[in-house]
Amino acid sequence: MGVDERRQQLIGVALELFSRRSPDEVSIDEIASAAGISRPLVYHYFPGKLSLYEAALKRAAEDLADRFVEPHEGSLGSRLLRVMRRFFDFVDEHGRGFSALMRGGPAVGASATNVLIDSVRQAAYDQILSHMGIVDAPPRLELVVRSWISLAESTALIWLDGRRIPRKELEAQLVYDFAALAAVSAAYDEEMATLLRQMVKDEPPDGPFADLIGRLVALAS
Amino acid sequence: MGVDERRQQLIGVALELFSRRSPDEVSIDEIASAAGISRPLVYHYFPGKLSLYEAALKRAAEDLADRFVEPHEGSLGSRLLRVMRRFFDFVDEHGRGFSALMRGGPAVGASATNVLIDSVRQAAYDQILSHMGIVDAPPRLELVVRSWISLAESTALIWLDGRRIPRKELEAQLVYDFAALAAVSAAYDEEMATLLRQMVKDEPPDGPFADLIGRLVALAS
Repeated sequence: MGVDERRQQLIGVALELFSRRSPDEVSIDEIASAAGISRPLVYHYFPGKLSLYEAALKRAAEDLADRFVEPHEGSLGSRLLRVMRRFFDFVDEHGRGFSALMRGGPAVGASATNVLIDSVRQAAYDQILSHMGIVDAPPRLELVVRSWISLAESTALIWLDGRRIPRKELEAQLVYDFAALAAVSAAYDEEMATLLRQMVKDEPPDGPFADLIGRLVALAS
Repeated sequence: MGVDERRQQLIGVALELFSRRSPDEVSIDEIASAAGISRPLVYHYFPGKLSLYEAALKRAAEDLADRFVEPHEGSLGSRLLRVMRRFFDFVDEHGRGFSALMRGGPAVGASATNVLIDSVRQAAYDQILSHMGIVDAPPRLELVVRSWISLAESTALIWLDGRRIPRKELEAQLVYDFAALAAVSAAYDEEMATLLRQMVKDEPPDGPFADLIGRLVALAS
């Protein structure tokens, strides 16, 4: 194997291990053994566990950011639902590592990992705005989108802790939550109301947003 | 001053400094000077900056948890609104330190600070359930309450970053958001629908929940 190929292989092996356990529980010996190479050879490619962890995290972050990319086709609700499915796929695949990271990550290298987490949040934010056709978001829309992203993170973390609610239900719920948070903001701000009307005007009667409104009306009566 | 009195004074001085700047930017010299004592004397009471930071954080955590305590009087919406006001008072007072802490805190001592943060979240969760009169929350209610707490955190962090939306508006918005997230969950789950009906049955026509419903109906038409 060439240098770059070997590095990529080691990152893949490390990511696999870091996904299933907290970083503190994974040793270089274990990574070496899983990759079928010696411990000194691992150190030849990566100076230490932290640099390997950061490389694995970087690959996971790029993977997650890619999952937010969605064709500009169909209603916003259906696009968001597809993105939420891929988000939960990711959370499912990297469960233990995702929890450990979001609950503080390893003590060392905290600032580097925070920069990486923020870059994924920013990628998600940019994608959502592009699907809404908005370049310069007013403060209230920015708040709705960014705080909804954090809601998606916490919902996933709570799901991972026992998996007591089916993930399909939570994927749909987060789409409804997006509409609900936008509606609350729109109920008290004219600019947000205009944006919301624009956002739902192409929603089909059998889409998630219409379904939510129908059910809420039934619930209120 | 007695030993305990001096320790308490130092914690107060340190908390004041840690509230206005990131912990990395505050030096022991500065704390000593603000407390009017010598640097060696600070070390006499606290072995290092980290232990002083943790003591300050512990006091702030207790203070914040106390602000969630609210008399069991009046509607749930009005109680939540008072709690949100006190929460934003806290965020306002400790702005810079709150941001730094929630965005990863100091690299050292991350697990101790995470335990502290989780204890405050748990205190908030317990308070909300007690106001709803619920001892054993079903998974969907637990999800709504816990994910709403994280929404309150992220809303406060986004507010601190530029303060572009008046905090009064956000205090009310978080109360509406709570109702909205509960309603979304109730729209798809019978148990949550029953809980929601119980929750709003004592809401007065001039309370925040009734106001939200009125505005949403107006928005939809």
